[in-house]
Amino acid sequence: MAGVRSSRQAGFEKGGARLPSSFKVGVCQLKVSPQKNENLQKAKEMIMEAAGRGAHLVVLPEMFNCPYQARLFLEYAESFPEGPSVRMLAGLARARRIYVVGGSIPERAGDCVYNTSFIFGPEGELLGRHRKIHLFDVDLPGGVRVQESSTLSAGSEMTVISTDLCRLGVAVCYDIRFPELFRLMALGGAQVIAVPAAFNLTTGPAHWKITFRVRAVDNQLYLVGASPARDESSGYVAYGHSLVVGPWGEVLAEAAEGEEIIYAEVDLEKIEKVRRQLPLLQHRRDDLYELIFKQPEQK
Amino acid sequence: MAGVRSSRQAGFEKGGARLPSSFKVGVCQLKVSPQKNENLQKAKEMIMEAAGRGAHLVVLPEMFNCPYQARLFLEYAESFPEGPSVRMLAGLARARRIYVVGGSIPERAGDCVYNTSFIFGPEGELLGRHRKIHLFDVDLPGGVRVQESSTLSAGSEMTVISTDLCRLGVAVCYDIRFPELFRLMALGGAQVIAVPAAFNLTTGPAHWKITFRVRAVDNQLYLVGASPARDESSGYVAYGHSLVVGPWGEVLAEAAEGEEIIYAEVDLEKIEKVRRQLPLLQHRRDDLYELIFKQPEQK
Repeated sequence: MAGVRSSRQAGFEKGGARLPSSFKVGVCQLKVSPQKNENLQKAKEMIMEAAGRGAHLVVLPEMFNCPYQARLFLEYAESFPEGPSVRMLAGLARARRIYVVGGSIPERAGDCVYNTSFIFGPEGELLGRHRKIHLFDVDLPGGVRVQESSTLSAGSEMTVISTDLCRLGVAVCYDIRFPELFRLMALGGAQVIAVPAAFNLTTGPAHWKITFRVRAVDNQLYLVGASPARDESSGYVAYGHSLVVGPWGEVLAEAAEGEEIIYAEVDLEKIEKVRRQLPLLQHRRDDLYELIFKQPEQK
Repeated sequence: MAGVRSSRQAGFEKGGARLPSSFKVGVCQLKVSPQKNENLQKAKEMIMEAAGRGAHLVVLPEMFNCPYQARLFLEYAESFPEGPSVRMLAGLARARRIYVVGGSIPERAGDCVYNTSFIFGPEGELLGRHRKIHLFDVDLPGGVRVQESSTLSAGSEMTVISTDLCRLGVAVCYDIRFPELFRLMALGGAQVIAVPAAFNLTTGPAHWKITFRVRAVDNQLYLVGASPARDESSGYVAYGHSLVVGPWGEVLAEAAEGEEIIYAEVDLEKIEKVRRQLPLLQHRRDDLYELIFKQPEQK
């Protein structure tokens, strides 16, 4: 974990076990084609480039290996650990000794298909998998009609992972619409929340940036949004504008609409500073309201 | 309630009891001076003007009768119903047959002083009072240091009122920082949430507009923010930029920094339309997370 180690050492006190206070995140805004192999190749190239430029955490977009169409999710679905997409991601994380939030892919598990983000660590190990909790069933102005629930099953777990870099939360796209989930991740210690997502040309201009910014402001942590590049010829046109937002709501990096990798420095001390100045989490009136994540019921 | 009645009739089905589907809100961005009488006179003039222009709901800023300084809150505090500010507001509501969200004032109640918004109906009746739940104790960049808790007590109730116009939620300033409260008001049926507030020149440019917009987007309702006008000579300089935001997050009206009244049309059918297109409240996973408002404990 060469790159990560050097960053960690910068944060080390002599002989101590302090974690790194800052690291670089790279967000790969790739254009998704109907050819899965092409998508994997493109993802590989972009991850390699991001790692080469010093990113210790690399984030891919929602459904980076499959066009965003409900009927295609079944066709493109893979299982862990044998699917080619997850094998590639694990291999790259290990080869470059980085953390990879593998966007999302259609995951087959038994009779179900989920919209799942696999997260790999620098040994290539699976650190977690976030199955999109909130399915996107909408009928929007501009003719955007999606029914994820026609083919997908919904996840039932919140994902916050301890890594050597930070406490990392992961959500997928429509999950970001629900402030409860983000507050719960913050209360669960998340310092960075990565959100592979594919807003569209109706919701994107109206809501994308302000929603990421306010989730960051409310919870005083970093938000990373990873979108596919815009492809006007696609059945579902993604908004693009991948971004990284800091704990004061400041946009640290933002992509345009095409393929590109954006980078930003995550500084965990900034989180503490903002929380000292404006102690929102301390000022919650938990004597008056209560927000809890229930354990999913066993079936 | 002449004005309101005509609006209601527009929404009536023949012989039915349908409530109005739309009405005009007016937001008075007044400059607060150290002279309480001047503030009351200014508020009176602006409320009269707003009513004259057809506003059925008029909203004043936070601490509209008192400079925003913790030590002054004790000096300017009044009790209900005998205080001059609340008597004036009730009288104007009755005289113009309108709804008035009376910004906020320092309210004396026994040994306590609250930052309270009094809400009056068209008979001059008190419909509710919202005592700011979250006290603003911060130490911000730019030298903004406030300790409301040094003189104020915190409220412990959520305020959502049924009126002939709409279900009306009320919060005060820093309360808007807490998504839990706004979600709970939405779940409690609020269609419009009025927020008398006084952001400053640090938090205003960074967070004011996006926070109002995203509370509206998340909860798919109208948000009304009423700020004092900016007064650079004041000890606490308010941001201004009073605004009205619709349920898609669109800014319907926004003030600049000086004294002015802004107006916008609230269309309750728009709420239903947005909620059909993007059913956020339906899609909440209340099987997985739970958010409740606890009854305040009796002392």
